[in-house]
Amino acid sequence: MKEIITIIRPKKVNATKEALVQLGITSMTAIPVLGRGKQKGIDGEVNIEYRKGILEQNKGVGMKYIPKRYLCLVVSDENAVAVIDTIIKINQTGQIGDGKIFVCPVEDALRIRTDEQGEDAIN
Amino acid sequence: MKEIITIIRPKKVNATKEALVQLGITSMTAIPVLGRGKQKGIDGEVNIEYRKGILEQNKGVGMKYIPKRYLCLVVSDENAVAVIDTIIKINQTGQIGDGKIFVCPVEDALRIRTDEQGEDAIN
Amino acid sequence: MKEIITIIRPKKVNATKEALVQLGITSMTAIPVLGRGKQKGIDGEVNIEYRKGILEQNKGVGMKYIPKRYLCLVVSDENAVAVIDTIIKINQTGQIGDGKIFVCPVEDALRIRTDEQGEDAIN
Repeated sequence: MKEIITIIRPKKVNATKEALVQLGITSMTAIPVLGRGKQKGIDGEVNIEYRKGILEQNKGVGMKYIPKRYLCLVVSDENAVAVIDTIIKINQTGQIGDGKIFVCPVEDALRIRTDEQGEDAIN
Repeated sequence: MKEIITIIRPKKVNATKEALVQLGITSMTAIPVLGRGKQKGIDGEVNIEYRKGILEQNKGVGMKYIPKRYLCLVVSDENAVAVIDTIIKINQTGQIGDGKIFVCPVEDALRIRTDEQGEDAIN
Repeated sequence: MKEIITIIRPKKVNATKEALVQLGITSMTAIPVLGRGKQKGIDGEVNIEYRKGILEQNKGVGMKYIPKRYLCLVVSDENAVAVIDTIIKINQTGQIGDGKIFVCPVEDALRIRTDEQGEDAIN
């Protein structure tokens, strides 16, 4: 099993979820985060009024952080490539700020309700 | 060392923490998240007024997300089974929405205050 | 590649980010969390008015949780030691509540915009 962590634009979350459901991937966790990548935050990505608040928060930090969504999915090894391809397909605009995907190992999974373990717990 | 990630009902967090303290596990991090599992969100799990807000947020998504708590603990290999058993014992109601547990490898841990490393940093 | 997770005091986040930028590490994700370590929450760490709210939230829990920041970075194996040393240097006050660092394996990384993979995606 793999943990697929992706940090994407908030406005792409719904389309990403819908595309993953098409793959049969229904379980995921979403966390609102502040993130930044190589570009040190970008102008124009969020609307100006909202941006002002963010800039205010970041005042004096010397770096700009922008709101992102952190999605976390645990999938079978078999499904990992299709999940990654789907996330890229939905989120790749070619513009700075498209986000990242990280793949981490998961040793075990359990569904609390049923005591199912391993891949049975994630399907 | 293992990272034990569990996504549980908000109302079960306090009982879970108390049970883990009985095991001597006092270090953990809690994050409020929106999650969903196989059941694509369920009705009746949260109270109706709150539920309305959530449904509103999810409008048009085609999937329902419900508030969950994401608890993250790093424990010794030795303690991992007892921690998992305790989380299941406290959170298993048999109802949809009981949550999940994921076990991930951790290569090292450090306590910043003391420079302690490895299992010394987590006990 | 390694995922470096650090749970630090909110007031140390800006100094930590600035020090990491000096190392050339510009990509990271920050999440506000409630955490506690061995000390079961400490008095006097946060200002009194804020503390009251936190105590209220924790009422009856038998444990005190304090606001922390959870920073998540993915770095090359080569950079991991320098990143850890920098986090310790900035955050070690010797006082309880300095926080922790966890090192987890990362199998792959992708930059969504460019399809770059592996270490190219994180630099």
